[in-house]
Amino acid sequence: MYLTQGLHRAVQQFPQRAVTVEDGRRRDYRTQMDRCARLAGALAGAGLVPGDRVAILALNGAVHWDYFPGLWWGGLVANPVNTRWSLKEMAYSLSDSGARVLLVDDAFLERIPELRRLCPGLQQVIHVGAAPTPAELTAYEPWLAAAEAVPDRRVGGDQLAVILYTGGTTGFPKGVMLSHSNLWSSAVGRLAETEVPSPFVTLMAVPLFHTAGLAKLVTQLIVGGTAVVEAGFRVDTVLADMAAERVTDVILVPSMIQMLIDHPTFADHDLSALEALTYGASPISQALLERAMAALPGARFMQSYGMTEASPVITVNPWWNHRGEALRNGRVRSAGRAGWGLEVRVVDPQGKELPPGTVGEVIARGDNVMLGYWNQPEQTAEVLRDGWLHTGDGGYMDEEGYLYIVDRLKDMIVSGGENVFCAEVENRLARHPAVASCAVIGVPHDQWGESVHAVVVLRPDSEVSEAALCDFCREELAGYKCPRSVEYRDSLPLSGAGKVLKNVLREPHWRGRDRRVS
Amino acid sequence: MYLTQGLHRAVQQFPQRAVTVEDGRRRDYRTQMDRCARLAGALAGAGLVPGDRVAILALNGAVHWDYFPGLWWGGLVANPVNTRWSLKEMAYSLSDSGARVLLVDDAFLERIPELRRLCPGLQQVIHVGAAPTPAELTAYEPWLAAAEAVPDRRVGGDQLAVILYTGGTTGFPKGVMLSHSNLWSSAVGRLAETEVPSPFVTLMAVPLFHTAGLAKLVTQLIVGGTAVVEAGFRVDTVLADMAAERVTDVILVPSMIQMLIDHPTFADHDLSALEALTYGASPISQALLERAMAALPGARFMQSYGMTEASPVITVNPWWNHRGEALRNGRVRSAGRAGWGLEVRVVDPQGKELPPGTVGEVIARGDNVMLGYWNQPEQTAEVLRDGWLHTGDGGYMDEEGYLYIVDRLKDMIVSGGENVFCAEVENRLARHPAVASCAVIGVPHDQWGESVHAVVVLRPDSEVSEAALCDFCREELAGYKCPRSVEYRDSLPLSGAGKVLKNVLREPHWRGRDRRVS
Repeated sequence: MYLTQGLHRAVQQFPQRAVTVEDGRRRDYRTQMDRCARLAGALAGAGLVPGDRVAILALNGAVHWDYFPGLWWGGLVANPVNTRWSLKEMAYSLSDSGARVLLVDDAFLERIPELRRLCPGLQQVIHVGAAPTPAELTAYEPWLAAAEAVPDRRVGGDQLAVILYTGGTTGFPKGVMLSHSNLWSSAVGRLAETEVPSPFVTLMAVPLFHTAGLAKLVTQLIVGGTAVVEAGFRVDTVLADMAAERVTDVILVPSMIQMLIDHPTFADHDLSALEALTYGASPISQALLERAMAALPGARFMQSYGMTEASPVITVNPWWNHRGEALRNGRVRSAGRAGWGLEVRVVDPQGKELPPGTVGEVIARGDNVMLGYWNQPEQTAEVLRDGWLHTGDGGYMDEEGYLYIVDRLKDMIVSGGENVFCAEVENRLARHPAVASCAVIGVPHDQWGESVHAVVVLRPDSEVSEAALCDFCREELAGYKCPRSVEYRDSLPLSGAGKVLKNVLREPHWRGRDRRVS
Repeated sequence: MYLTQGLHRAVQQFPQRAVTVEDGRRRDYRTQMDRCARLAGALAGAGLVPGDRVAILALNGAVHWDYFPGLWWGGLVANPVNTRWSLKEMAYSLSDSGARVLLVDDAFLERIPELRRLCPGLQQVIHVGAAPTPAELTAYEPWLAAAEAVPDRRVGGDQLAVILYTGGTTGFPKGVMLSHSNLWSSAVGRLAETEVPSPFVTLMAVPLFHTAGLAKLVTQLIVGGTAVVEAGFRVDTVLADMAAERVTDVILVPSMIQMLIDHPTFADHDLSALEALTYGASPISQALLERAMAALPGARFMQSYGMTEASPVITVNPWWNHRGEALRNGRVRSAGRAGWGLEVRVVDPQGKELPPGTVGEVIARGDNVMLGYWNQPEQTAEVLRDGWLHTGDGGYMDEEGYLYIVDRLKDMIVSGGENVFCAEVENRLARHPAVASCAVIGVPHDQWGESVHAVVVLRPDSEVSEAALCDFCREELAGYKCPRSVEYRDSLPLSGAGKVLKNVLREPHWRGRDRRVS
C-alpha cells in the first residue's frame, strides 16, 4: 500500500472529477496526477533521493495536493511547517528534519531570508505564490512545467511519509514520524466503520500541517473525492463555499463550530448538502454540541479522538450516539470506541488494564501508531512500549468499551488530595447561558497545593458574577471541583490546532515556582 | 495489525455477543477468546513455535473459530485442507506445507491412518468430533481444557497467516501464502466501500478451506459479527437457518444461489432480514441473477471478483449497479472496479497498459496480493512481477474503470482464427428458458482448430433441440461464436469452489492429442 494509490484509481475511474476547488478554480484528477509526477521529477532533478525531506510553509492551498502526493510519488518525506509558529520554532523544525527543499507561499515570503540564515541545510526554496519571486528563489510553476513526469516509485508500507512537529504547547517540538501504512490505516479504518458521504466533497479548513487536515487529505485521495480548500477560517467565505460547492463532509474543531453557527449570516446559507460533521482535537461542551446539532439538523455528527502520534484516530463516537437515548445517558460525551484495526485500553502506571469505570492512562496499539519521534529514541521509548502508544490522556471505559476522556493527565488538578478533571468543570461552566467559552486550570494554593481556577469568556452583552458561576457549578459538582476563583477574558489563547493553550493561562500564576504542585 | 485484533475489540465491546451459531448452539466472544488462548497454549505445549503450520480437515464448524484465530494468537500458520480432494491430493498438500499437527472431524476420521502413512511429518492428530476418539489420536476438548491460556503473541503484518492450496483444476496444487496484512487489507478495503449490514450475521456456507470462506471469517472477526455455520450446503437447513437467525449477510457462488431460489420450500422462509448478498467465484448468467434479485427483493446484490492469490478481492461491483440503468446498459455484467487500496489494470503480453475496450490480461497490485507460492519461487516469479499479480484472466475496462472479465484466458476458444470467449456464449445460452445451466468449451476441429461446443443441463420437464439452441444464439451472437455441437447432461462437474470443471468436460474430446489447439 502506498498513498498515491488513490490518484491512480481516480484517474482510471473519474479523471475529470475535481480533486481541489480553490477560490472557485477546479483542478481535475488527471491534471493532478501529471503535476505530482512532474513535482517528483523536478525534485529528483534537484538531486533528492527517496527518504529526503521536503518542507512547505504555506496556508492551505491547492499546492498541497501537488506537495503531499507528489512527494510520495517520488518516495520523499513531507514536513509541513506549522504556519502559526514563531520563526525560531520554524527554524528548529526545519533544521531538525534536515529538509533540503522548502516550498513557500506569498504569506511567508518575508520570513525566508532569516530562515535561510538559520537553516543552512536548505539548498533550494521554491516560491509557490502569485507575488513576484525574489531573486534567490525558484518560481514554482515554470519549474514544474519544465520538469519531466517520472514514474511513480510506489514507495509505501512502513516507509516514512511525513514528519509532523507536534503542538509546541509544552517543551520543544517533536517530529512525529508517520508511515504510509500509518496514515492509510487510520483513514481506511474510519471509512470502514461509518457511512461515507457521496459525493465526497470535503471542506479543508483545518490546517494541512496538522494531523487532522493531513488525515482528511489522505482520506479524500483514497475515496477519490473533492476538497474545497480554505486558506484560513474566514467564516463568511467558509459558509459561502460550503453552500456553493454543496459540501458533504467537514472536520472542524469546536472553536470553528462555534464561530460558524454564531455567525450573523449563518442562516442565510443553504448547508443542506452536509452529511457528515466530525469534530475533535479539543473537548466540546455539550451546550455547544447541542446548539450545533440543532443548527445543522441534516448532518451526522461524529466525534473523533486521537493525536498526531496515532495518525490520528484512536476512537470514534459515531452519529448514532448523538441522538435519542445517548443524549440523555451521557454516551454522547464519550470519545467513542476502538475502531477496526486497533486496540485501546485504560491502564494503571504499571501498564495493567483497569476495570470499567476506573480512570487511568489511555493506551492504543495498531497500524496507525507512529514509527516514533524523529531523532528522539529516548522520547520514543517513553511513549511506545511493546507497541502500545501511551497517550498521556486520562480516561475510563464503560462496560461496552466506550472511552471517556477525563482530561489530559498533565492538566489534572490535585486540590487537597482530590483529583479534579478540568474537562468536567469546563463542561459545567459552558452550560451557563452567559458563558461563551472557558478553561479551567490549577493555580497554586498554600493549603491545598492547587485550587481550581476558571478563565471565562462571556457571550456578547452577557454578564455573570464569580459567585453566581461558582453556585452554578455547585448545583452539579462536588464542592472541591468548583472554581475558587474566576478570571474574565475577551478570548482564550489557542494553539494552531484550536486547543486552549493552558500553559499560557497558567504561566503568570506559577511563575518562579519550580514545581507545579506542592 | 494482526488478525486477532477483532477478538480483543469484541470482548471489550460486546463480550456476550455470539461469534458462532452451529446447529442452534451459540458461543460468545469471551468464551471464544479464552478457547483461542488455550489452543495457542496447547500447541505451544506440543512444541510448536511461531511460523509452524497446523492443518485442519473438517467440514465447516465452530471449531474453525478456535482454529484460525487460535493459531494466529500463537503466531502459527493455518493450512485448511480441501475436504473435496482425493487422499493423494490431501497428502500432497500436508507434506508440502510441512504441517506438524492436524485437526480432524468425524467426517474424515477414516482417512487418518492412510494420511499418517503418507505424511510422516504429522506428529499429532487431534480429533474434534463427537465420535469416539481412536487410540492414536488426541481428543480435542479435554486437551483444550487442560491447556494453559497464553498471551496473544500479536504476530501480524507481513507474517504468514495461512497457506491455501488452490484449485487443483489444472496441474498440481500450489500453496498460496497469505499474510495477516493480505487478509486484513482485502476485508477492510471492501468494508470501507460498501454498507456493512447491522447487525452483522453472516451465513458461512462456503467452505472455510476456500479463500471466500476464509475472507468472510476474517471480515466477521473485524466487524465483531456472528457467523451461522453450515457444515455443508443442505438447502433446507440453510433456508431454515437464514430465517431463524435473521441472517443479514451471505456470500454464495452462483450454483448455490440457484439451488436456494429453486428449492420447493424457498417461499416458505422469511429471508427479509437479508441485507447483502455477495456472489462470485464463477460467472453468473444474467438470467439467474435477475431471477435471484426478484426472489430476494430486500437484499443488495454485489459481485466480487478475485482469486485466492488476492486474498481474494480484486474488484467489486456494488449493489447500485444491480438496478435501473445498469441492468440495461450491461454494467451489471461488470466485475466492478478496483477497490480502495489496490490498483487494477488490463495489459498486453509485454505488460503495457491497454486502452479501454481492449481485451488483455487483468493484473492487480495492493496489500491484498499474496506473499507468493509456498516453496515455489519460480511459479511465484511467473505471476508476481514488480509487485503486480498476473491473474491469467482476460478482460477489458470501460472508460470509467469498470472491468469486464471475458474469460479465463486459458478457456478462450480460437476457432478459424477468431477468438471466442466462452462466457459470452454461456450467458446467451443461459437466457434460453429451457436451460438450467451450461458450459461452453472448445473441441478439436480439423479445419478451424477448435469449434464451439456447448454442454447443457435442461430445466426439469423442458427440452430444446440442438438446432433451436444454435438459432437462439445466432439471434445475438456472431456466427463463429455459436455452438456447432450441443451435449445434454444431467449436471455439470463442479470444483469445491463451485466452478465448472471444464477440463473434465474437455478431456474426452482431446484425449490422445498433445496440443489443445492445432
